[in-house]
This record gives sequence, C-alpha cells and structure tokens, in this order.
Amino acid sequence: MRIDNRQNDELRKVTIQRNYLLYPNGSVLIKVGNTAVLCTVSIEDKVPHFLKGTEKGWLTCEYSMLPGSTHSRKMRDSTRGKIDGRSQEIQRLIGRSLRTSIDLSKIGERTIWIDCDVLQADGGTRTASITGAFVAMYEAVYKLFKDGLITEFPVKDFVAATSIGKIGEELILDLNYEEDSSAEVDMNVVMNERGQFIEVQGTGEEALFSKTELFEMVDLAEKGIKTLIEKQKDALIDIRMELELDEENCISNE
Amino acid sequence: MRIDNRQNDELRKVTIQRNYLLYPNGSVLIKVGNTAVLCTVSIEDKVPHFLKGTEKGWLTCEYSMLPGSTHSRKMRDSTRGKIDGRSQEIQRLIGRSLRTSIDLSKIGERTIWIDCDVLQADGGTRTASITGAFVAMYEAVYKLFKDGLITEFPVKDFVAATSIGKIGEELILDLNYEEDSSAEVDMNVVMNERGQFIEVQGTGEEALFSKTELFEMVDLAEKGIKTLIEKQKDALIDIRMELELDEENCISNE
Amino acid sequence: MRIDNRQNDELRKVTIQRNYLLYPNGSVLIKVGNTAVLCTVSIEDKVPHFLKGTEKGWLTCEYSMLPGSTHSRKMRDSTRGKIDGRSQEIQRLIGRSLRTSIDLSKIGERTIWIDCDVLQADGGTRTASITGAFVAMYEAVYKLFKDGLITEFPVKDFVAATSIGKIGEELILDLNYEEDSSAEVDMNVVMNERGQFIEVQGTGEEALFSKTELFEMVDLAEKGIKTLIEKQKDALIDIRMELELDEENCISNE
Amino acid sequence: MRIDNRQNDELRKVTIQRNYLLYPNGSVLIKVGNTAVLCTVSIEDKVPHFLKGTEKGWLTCEYSMLPGSTHSRKMRDSTRGKIDGRSQEIQRLIGRSLRTSIDLSKIGERTIWIDCDVLQADGGTRTASITGAFVAMYEAVYKLFKDGLITEFPVKDFVAATSIGKIGEELILDLNYEEDSSAEVDMNVVMNERGQFIEVQGTGEEALFSKTELFEMVDLAEKGIKTLIEKQKDALIDIRMELELDEENCISNE
Amino acid sequence: MRIDNRQNDELRKVTIQRNYLLYPNGSVLIKVGNTAVLCTVSIEDKVPHFLKGTEKGWLTCEYSMLPGSTHSRKMRDSTRGKIDGRSQEIQRLIGRSLRTSIDLSKIGERTIWIDCDVLQADGGTRTASITGAFVAMYEAVYKLFKDGLITEFPVKDFVAATSIGKIGEELILDLNYEEDSSAEVDMNVVMNERGQFIEVQGTGEEALFSKTELFEMVDLAEKGIKTLIEKQKDALIDIRMELELDEENCISNE
Amino acid sequence: MRIDNRQNDELRKVTIQRNYLLYPNGSVLIKVGNTAVLCTVSIEDKVPHFLKGTEKGWLTCEYSMLPGSTHSRKMRDSTRGKIDGRSQEIQRLIGRSLRTSIDLSKIGERTIWIDCDVLQADGGTRTASITGAFVAMYEAVYKLFKDGLITEFPVKDFVAATSIGKIGEELILDLNYEEDSSAEVDMNVVMNERGQFIEVQGTGEEALFSKTELFEMVDLAEKGIKTLIEKQKDALIDIRMELELDEENCISNE
Repeated sequence: MRIDNRQNDELRKVTIQRNYLLYPNGSVLIKVGNTAVLCTVSIEDKVPHFLKGTEKGWLTCEYSMLPGSTHSRKMRDSTRGKIDGRSQEIQRLIGRSLRTSIDLSKIGERTIWIDCDVLQADGGTRTASITGAFVAMYEAVYKLFKDGLITEFPVKDFVAATSIGKIGEELILDLNYEEDSSAEVDMNVVMNERGQFIEVQGTGEEALFSKTELFEMVDLAEKGIKTLIEKQKDALIDIRMELELDEENCISNE
Repeated sequence: MRIDNRQNDELRKVTIQRNYLLYPNGSVLIKVGNTAVLCTVSIEDKVPHFLKGTEKGWLTCEYSMLPGSTHSRKMRDSTRGKIDGRSQEIQRLIGRSLRTSIDLSKIGERTIWIDCDVLQADGGTRTASITGAFVAMYEAVYKLFKDGLITEFPVKDFVAATSIGKIGEELILDLNYEEDSSAEVDMNVVMNERGQFIEVQGTGEEALFSKTELFEMVDLAEKGIKTLIEKQKDALIDIRMELELDEENCISNE
Repeated sequence: MRIDNRQNDELRKVTIQRNYLLYPNGSVLIKVGNTAVLCTVSIEDKVPHFLKGTEKGWLTCEYSMLPGSTHSRKMRDSTRGKIDGRSQEIQRLIGRSLRTSIDLSKIGERTIWIDCDVLQADGGTRTASITGAFVAMYEAVYKLFKDGLITEFPVKDFVAATSIGKIGEELILDLNYEEDSSAEVDMNVVMNERGQFIEVQGTGEEALFSKTELFEMVDLAEKGIKTLIEKQKDALIDIRMELELDEENCISNE
Repeated sequence: MRIDNRQNDELRKVTIQRNYLLYPNGSVLIKVGNTAVLCTVSIEDKVPHFLKGTEKGWLTCEYSMLPGSTHSRKMRDSTRGKIDGRSQEIQRLIGRSLRTSIDLSKIGERTIWIDCDVLQADGGTRTASITGAFVAMYEAVYKLFKDGLITEFPVKDFVAATSIGKIGEELILDLNYEEDSSAEVDMNVVMNERGQFIEVQGTGEEALFSKTELFEMVDLAEKGIKTLIEKQKDALIDIRMELELDEENCISNE
Repeated sequence: MRIDNRQNDELRKVTIQRNYLLYPNGSVLIKVGNTAVLCTVSIEDKVPHFLKGTEKGWLTCEYSMLPGSTHSRKMRDSTRGKIDGRSQEIQRLIGRSLRTSIDLSKIGERTIWIDCDVLQADGGTRTASITGAFVAMYEAVYKLFKDGLITEFPVKDFVAATSIGKIGEELILDLNYEEDSSAEVDMNVVMNERGQFIEVQGTGEEALFSKTELFEMVDLAEKGIKTLIEKQKDALIDIRMELELDEENCISNE
Repeated sequence: MRIDNRQNDELRKVTIQRNYLLYPNGSVLIKVGNTAVLCTVSIEDKVPHFLKGTEKGWLTCEYSMLPGSTHSRKMRDSTRGKIDGRSQEIQRLIGRSLRTSIDLSKIGERTIWIDCDVLQADGGTRTASITGAFVAMYEAVYKLFKDGLITEFPVKDFVAATSIGKIGEELILDLNYEEDSSAEVDMNVVMNERGQFIEVQGTGEEALFSKTELFEMVDLAEKGIKTLIEKQKDALIDIRMELELDEENCISNE
C-alpha cells in the first residue's frame, strides 16, 4: 500500500482552476495532490528575431519554484545570479511539449509566453505544469480566436503529462515527494489525446531498469494521462462547446 | 467619487488568509482589493557572518512580482540577470519595517526569511506585503515559541502599512493601480499599533506637495493603518488568545 | 552641543566648485563638511527606446562611492558583480528629484546623464549629491541653451536636499557620519525654491517617531534647504545674470 | 539507403584514443564518424560541502562545444555570460549516467571531474561524450587504484550511449548531424553491459511516436550500445588484464 | 644545460597541422614542444556596429584554456562567470598582432573570428597561439580569395611570436612551463617577416632586467621568430605557390 | 614642435598632492598635464587564501575611469556587468609593478589595496597611476612602520612609469591624449631608481618599429622616469627624512 493509500496505478486528486488571475491572457491554478502550480499565459505581439517576417508564431516557457514552495526555503534564481540547471531542463521540456499541440503558423507573428510558478512542491511539478499550462494556453488562444485576431483555432491535440517510478519491485503512478525521494527509477511521460508520445524520459537514479519495466511504466503512464486529459476537457467544457457551435454554424452556413 | 466608489479615506476590502502553504514556518495570502501577495516566512538556524557568536537573530526580505501579476507580462529578474532597482528598494523597506517590530535578540542565532511574491498587482503591493508579512512572521515566530525553541515571545508591536496619493486636489487613501498611475504625489507610510511612525516616504511625481498636504496625508495614513492593524489582530485571534493564556498561566504559577 | 560645535539647526560648511573637470558638459565638486561628491553631467544625443519619436528628453542618474571614500575600503560594485541596493535606491532618488526641476520636453531627444561619485563620505552623501548635481545640470543645460541647441532654458526651479535626524531627544540638521551612526531616526528631504516638497523619507532605525517629531523635522529641513538654495544661486550667479539679460533682451525686442 | 550508405541499424566508425593529454588523470579522444569529443578526467582531493565527513566521493561533469566545432561559429558560454540550457541538460545527463557505473563510496573524499569538450560536432555529441568519458574515467580511477590510493577498484559496469531517430517511416541508429536535423523523433539511450537502462529520452520534434515505435527504437539502441561497449573493452584491454591478474593474485594469495 | 637538453637559443620542436577541423574557414593544430593549441578561424558576414557602412572588415580573438590543459584542472570561465584577466590580456594581444598582418580594408564588411583553445599548456601558449592562428587565418582568407569573394589577397606579412626568459644569469629562448615558472624575467615578442616589431612585452617577476639584458633578449627573440616564420611558410607552401601562380598569370595576361 | 609646445623628450607638468583624503591609509592626487588620477591605499589585516599562514603580505590593484573622465561619457563597469579588458590589463600591470618595489614578507599577513580612479583622462593614465600609487603606498606603509605595526620599513626602490610614442618619424616622451590617438607606436615603461626595468611594453598600432627605434624609445623613457622619481622623492621628503633619522638613531644606539 502507498503512503497515501493509493493503488499503484492511481493518480492523486487533480483540480484545475481557470481564470485564476485578472491580467494574463490565460491563467490556471492546477493542484495535483499537494502540488500546486500557477500557470499563466501571456501573448505578446512580436516574435524572436529568427521568426520575423515568417508570419509564424512562437511559444516559450519559464518555470520557477517560489522560495516557500519546498521543505527548506529555495533560494531564488535571481539571488543566485543564474537559473539552475534543473529549472532550465524543465522549462525546455514544457515548451517543447506544448509546441507539439498547437499549429504556430496559425497564430500570426505572436509569442505565447508560458509561465509555470510552483507555489507548493510535493512531487511531479513538471508534469503538473504541462497539464495545467495546456489548459491556460487553450483558454488564452481561444480569446484570440473569439476576438477575431486569428481566423482558425490553432490547438490540435490535448496534451498532458505524468510521472511513474519504481520503488523496490513496485511500479507506481504519479509520485508524491516522499515517493519520489525514495524512487530508484523515475520516468516522466508526455502524451497527447491520440495516444502518441511527445516525450519519454526514464532515469535510473539508485537502481536501473529492464526493458520489461520500461514498457510497463509506459503502460501505466498511458493510463494516467488518459484520465488527466479527461480532467482537462472537463475544465474547458464551456470553450469546447463554443468551438463546436462555431463549427456547426460554419457547416450550417454552407 | 473614486473609480471604485470608495470614499477618499476608505480602504479597499482586505482579507488575510493564514496557513496558506504547507511547508514554510508561516504563510499568508493577503488580498487588498485586487492586489494579492503571497507572504511566506522561513526560519533558518544560522545568521549572516557579521552576527555569528552574538546570540542575536536576523531578519531579511525578498520581494518579487510573478510574470503574470501585471497588465503586460513582467520579465523575471533571473532572466534579466539582476534584481530591478524598484524591487530592491521595496524589499529593503519591508525588511526594515519588520525589524522594528521584533526583538531579534530573543530569537537566538536564527534568520527569519520573509518572501513576498506578488500574484496580482493592482497598486499598493509594497504596503500589502508589509501588512501580510507581519502576520506570517507572527505565526512563524509563535511556532518557535510554542515548540520551546525560544523562551520569550519576541514580537513587540503590530505593524502595518498603506499608501496615500494626491489626484488633482483630492487626497485619497489606499490607491489602486489606476489611481496610482494618475496620482501626482504618492506616499507610503508604515506605522505601529502605538501610532509611531516607522517609515514615511512621500514622492512628488507629476506635481509636488505643500507642508499642509504632507500633514493631511499622514493623517489619512494613520486612519487607514489603524483599521489594518485591527484586521491583523482578527486574523491572529487564536494565537493572541494562546499567548494571553500563557501569560496568565505564568502569573498563576507565581 | 553637537560633536562639531554646531547648533541643532546649523548646516555644515558648504562649498560648490564649478567646472571641476574639462570634458563633461557640467561638473561640480560639492563639499558639505568633510563629505565630498563629484557631480558630472554628460548630455547624449539620444533617448531610451520608450521615448524615441516623442521629441522629449530623459534624465538618469548613477551614484557610486569610491573605494577610498569610507572608513574601511568599500568594495567596488564591478567587483561584487552587481550594484548594491543602497546605491540603486540613492540613484533613483537623485534622478527623480532632478526630473521635477526641469522641463524635459524642452531639451529635445537628449539624455542628461548625472554621475555622482563620492570621493569622501562623512554623512549626507545622497543629499549633497542632489544639491551638487542640480548645479552641474544647470551649468550643462545652460551650455546647450547658449549654443542654440535648445531654444528655451528648461530649468524650472532650484532644488536642494538635506538630512535631519533624532538623537536622544534632540532633532538635528545635516548629520555627519558620526551623528548618522548614532541617530535613531533618519530623514531626507528634497525641496524646491518655492517650498514645495519633492521627497520626504523618514525612517526609524533604532527608535520610531511621533507625528509631532515628524513635523518638526520637516520644519528643520525647510530651513536648511533654503540656505542651500542660496548657496546654489551664488554659485551660479554668472549664468543667472546672463539668463536675465537674455530675457530682458527678449522683452526689449518685442 | 542512408546518406553515408549505412544500414538503418549500423553505427558510424568509432575510435577511442586513450592517454590523449599529458596532465589529466584520464583523457580520451573519441571519434564517432566525424563527431570528435575530448573527454578529460581530473581527480581532486576534496568533495562538495554536503559530502564532507561522509568518506564518499563525488562525480560531476561539464560539457562544452568549442567555437569551431559547428557549421557556423558557436558563441562561447563565457561570452554569453551563462551556460546555455542545452549544455546544462547534457552535462547533467553525462554526470548522472557515469555515477551509476561507479561505487563512489570506494574512492574516498575525492571529486571526479569529467570534462567533455566537443572539437567537432556531427551529431550525437552527448552520447559520444558518455561513451568516451566512461573510458577516461576507467583509466583515471585505475591509476588511483594502482597507486594504492584506493583499495578496491570501484567501477561496476561498462556504460555507453547512442541515439536513435525516426525519419519518415524509417527508424535509424546513430544519427549524424544531417540526419538529426531532419529527424522527426529523436531518442537517446544510456545502457550498461548487463542490458539495464540508465536513461531513455525520446522526444517528438516534428512528429510524435507510437508505443510500437518506442519499443523498436529501444531495441535498436540496445544493439548499438552492445557494440560500443565492446569497443570500450577493447580500448581498455591492458587495464582489464591487469585487473584480472590482480584478482587472480589475490585468490592465489589466499 | 636546459632541462630538455636544448641550447639557450634553441626552439622546441614545432609542428603545424592544417585543416584540422571540417567546419571552420581555417583551422590549425600547432604544437610547440608539449604545448598544443587549436586555432580556428571563422569568417562572418557582418562587422561590429562601429564599422557598418565603412566597407572595412574586423578581426577579433578569443583565447581559452581547456580544463584538462593544465597540471591541476583549470576552472572554466563560464563557471566562474567571467573571463579571467590573463585570458583577456592574451586575446587582446593575439588580436592586435594579427590585425597588423592583414589589410582589413580588403576583406569587405566581414569579421574574422580567431579562436585559440589551448589543449595542452606547457609554456608559451600565447606565442604559439599567434604563430598558429596566423596560419589558420592565411588559410581562411585564401579560401575567400579563391572563391572570388574578395579580389585581392589581403595578408601583408608573416607574423610569429616567441618568448624569452632570464633564469639566473642565463637568457633562454622559448621557455617551457618548468622554465617559465622559475624565470625571473619573462618577455614575449611578436615580429613580422621584415624584422619589424609588433609587440615587445618584458616583465620582471622575481628579478628585474638591465638595458643590456633587454637588448640581448630582443636579439634572441628575433632569431627564434625567423625560424618560426620559415615553419609557417613551409606549412602554407601549397597556398603560397597558388598565389604566386595567380600573380604570374596576372602578369602573363597583361 | 608638439601640440603643447613641448620638446620631444619633455614631460608634462607633474604635481603630486599627498593626504588628499581623510580615511584611506594613503592617498595621492597625481596630475600629469591634464591627466588626474586619485590613488588611494587601504591596508587590510588579512591575506588571500593562498597566503594564509605564510606570514607574508599581498598587494593588489584596481583601476577604473570615472564616467566624466573622458571626452564622451564612459559607461561604468558595474553597469556593463563586467570589468573591461583594458582596465584589467592596467590593474594587473600596476599591481605587478608595485610588488617589485616592496618586500611583502616584511608587512605581515596584510593586504595592500591600491585603488587608482581616473578623474580626468588626457593620456598616460596607467603610467600616472603607477607613479602616484607608489607615493600613496609609501605614505601608507610608513604609517604602519611609525605605529610600530611592522618593524622594518619594507619599501625597497622608488618606482615610476611613463609612456613613449612614435608619430611620423618622431619619437616623443609622455604622450597626451591627442598624441596618443595619432601615435603609430605606443610604449609604456616602468623602471626603478636603480635604472632596472620592471616592465617594457611596446605595441605597434598603425606602424611597426625597428630594433633601433625600440632602443631609442627605451632611452627616452629612462630619462623621463628619472625625473619622475625625483618628483616622488620631493613629495615624500618629510617621510624620507624621518626614515633617515630613524636609521641614524639605530646606528647611534649600537
């Protein structure tokens, strides 16, 4: 039995709170168990130098943990004078994952800024960030679409992420901090609603893993992510209905 | 009449939510109108070099705005590679203000880290930070005291802060962002429960101010801060009662 | 009696030496007692990005202490890799204060760089910087005017600054370093020749201050600044006479 | 057929040149096709703060590309003022991979510094770095052992790495730069001689990948890494023979 | 007799390996005894701001030592966060020296980037860098010329460099690391094929030097550099013959 | 004839003002023509890590130009975020030069900090810095000696420096900024009172120099430095007399 009485293939409780802030184009507070990440999306009317004149947009991500989010206070990157390696790795992963879910050639020369700020870190902050940021991005991009600034809704597939680990002989889904600390193998998986993989990152920390274990972990991840994508769809039900109406109207107009 | 229908001497709605996070020693989410600041307090068992061996503690503060807290996305300090001047000024002010409210010789060789992270900025973030951080500090220090790590409760006076501004000929209390942007004079006041001033900072931006106006603004501030200190006391009612019981027990023991 | 035999409301000896250096547009060595600040003004023919195309100018300030200016050697900002918080606060204050004294829409798209480098620090370096930098700016801007590069003399009001402190029960004007170190309350005031306040910053360090003390300190400051503005006017007597002649000529031309 | 006429499951030519430099404890120039990485290993007689007094050692890695290693000149990290995210990610991966292959509790309080400097980058620099750095580490640690500074040879398993990619419908092993640029899916695998996985990182760039493809790519990697480990063993044949002799001597002594 | 049995006026063995890398415009691995420097030259189609529109080119240099190049591991500049003073001094010297050997008005608005990365440091890395980088630059610029991108071959004079030192009463040429460490006086000389001096830098470390010694050291340097320039000419024999043919063809065309 | 009517071998007017500041151990304002450098010396009671326990002292130097010292405003190093290469080169030269003039084993475990801040730059700031800093160091070290903190006066030889240049066919001494800008060859020489060379740095900028010219420039430098050392001795006449008296007393005591 797991510390918090979950089954090995059971996710923690997930809540996705939309419109959490007033000013950004999209904002979501996602909680996965005790992990809480504030995902905000700001759309800027310009693109990096290498995209100027291409009529394509860009999407980039910054990830950070607040000092009070961890057991002992986390020093700020701005105090240390540089972004730590782990944060850089995570923000590159989030950006890469979301870029596969959206057709950036349909948003014009705009940059989608994704900010994931961890308010509380109880394991799985990078996967919660991806799952939450997707919703905030959906919300933000929908506003562009609704306001007529873009003519086609550019999001292609729902994308979510979760973690799997190996403790002793057990393979478990969605590790909390305590489990994560004692896990010998740690895997993060990003997948879309069509069951396609975007990212699979398995790392042996204390122990290593066999091919069979690798495949079993991927199966577990698949199961968890399907549930997460349902949660995302529920959270976005209003927008999704609007979009379907739009589409129907389009058809009826024909 | 003000934009949000307040009287000139009327504060915005204030809520102080304690125990907002799991891990820090103290944590408060303070909302003043639409301004929201997460104040966390972490106590570390060491002091800066210049205090080693003195048996005295230290208190320091860091202030930062999340990228999604402002109308247009705020670039992170860690990306810019340095803390901006305004943030430095504010975190120095918060630290200075709280240091006057606590007897650091009674907390042993410990450092009290105050972190004020602005989730949403609608004017008055520095004064909301002071008002909220005081409560989080009170909570954190009380835990030390209750756990027997310190023998005397070191907080001396309640401290809170507010802003005052001059728009046209009107002097108004507790400016929101829109008011702040059009204010010609901007003043921040930090005061304690005994009516003593800790900090008075008045700045003429567009217009300057006369001595009479200076004195009237101070009066307005005094009125607002008294109300804020009542809110702080309400938020800490349980701890304050415990402390009083302790004191009574002490007396009865004698 | 004060350490240096001054009355409580007595300034230290002030000298303002103009044209101290060959190359900058304006340069002043101001001495207030043993405090010595070199104020130089350089005018550049461009403005920051946000002002391009507005036909308005900009004014910005940098403040620094030389390593040999203090009792124990002060480490350079360039060695520490960042500007310390105190210096940032001070240079923001100087810039803000001088911007109120000049109509930047009359200098074209130019940037006025104010550099205040403290050669010797015996208390009151920020207020001496404001008082001295005003004179250097006046000198620099006059050259622009005289050379026909701008058509109207843009300086509006003389601006100067001083400090006040509370030691024991005494309120004293223009603190030297020794007084400053033992002051329980420290206030800096920036005022113009019309008696309007630009900045009032009072800080309780060891002790706090009552409203009555606040008002008395402001009165003391007012008295000191009036004297300082006379010194500035004396130092600029030649330019002021030229400007008056100009104005008369203008009138006679009409 | 691939650009360089290889089969889909065929590695590029690999050469491992030991003792490449005079001064470091171990040094290897590894070439994988046109990719060339200089791997040096320096052993320092101290450990990071968090390991002091534990009698355990540490292993850390730095990875960098020389300016002339790429098609267009790569700006130095020292000029940019920070290590780029990709390099950080890679050096973390190399360090993590090698730490699983060595028992750091057997090297005393020493730090093994791994430096991977890419002289020429034609794809697969991170996997070539792991494969080459392992050999340099083996060499360096053997010297410690031979000099009697450690009593047990601490390397547990041979570790090597390779990449796999998907171009169109083809899955191919060990991508060169041109292939890497056009690959829709990119995977890096680190494995030890016992067929255990240390790291599996698959990333969909242009296209995503199915579970079947994931498993096929892992199979391809397994095949390639087995060959690489044979190359490593050949390169270290002299040391391996010495170590076996040692072991035999030990037995015969009993 | 010297440590390595050389005469006082004898250079170490010099080898110059051209076309060492695939991608840069020019690349040379120069070895002077055990000192090995990789010199790469990249030509970029733009110039620094101050040269835009002048139709002149620029040449700049960066010098760095790899971590494994020295007896104890050298910390990277990117880790230290800044380029050390010695490296800056050296890269400025290399740039300055090479700029005298080429007519930058003949290469159009291009920048020649010289990168000198020390693989192994056994004394004289700065002078080996100059000698090797000259050859790489010659090679790179020749390609421009051959490809018709520039119409005149811009290199004017061969340039090389060496070091001289004083140990006890002996003046010796081309110091290795061991000699360099014990030298009381250290001099670097850069000279061209016409016997003109570009740079003479003599530094008394432990002892100082008389005018007579200064002149003798310069004579020694002259002798060494003449030999080095012959080596450079040998290494570039193919290009020099092509250039002469070109010239002859030009003449025969007339 | 030169711009300022000097002979080719004529120095500019030199003044050395001692005790310029109140707080540092030594301080000198040196003027060489219009060049003005403030040299301050601070002695700290500790040494860098590598000298701890050796009972030897250390001497280090920092050099900087004030923003107003040059024709167009010089950006501060602290704003640029790094010390520019030229400043680093100069401060290393000053430190090296002064270290040869003092026996650091006689000052105990102390660090002599030399700060050279250029107030006005009209050519020759590095050589003026050396000449002035020597005097400030002499003054500072004498105070240590007089206060009985060290038992032997550690300064060995007077050290000064000057520059020489080649313009057209003329070799000239002590270049001002205008001359320096048009000089084709630029040389700096540091020498002691015994005619020994500490540093000879000749650089061909536009043109190169022959051996004959090199030797003539050295002769010119020698002449100038002799005069400068006389000026230093005059400026220190009081201390030098005290030191001689001390020595006599010592003798008479025997």
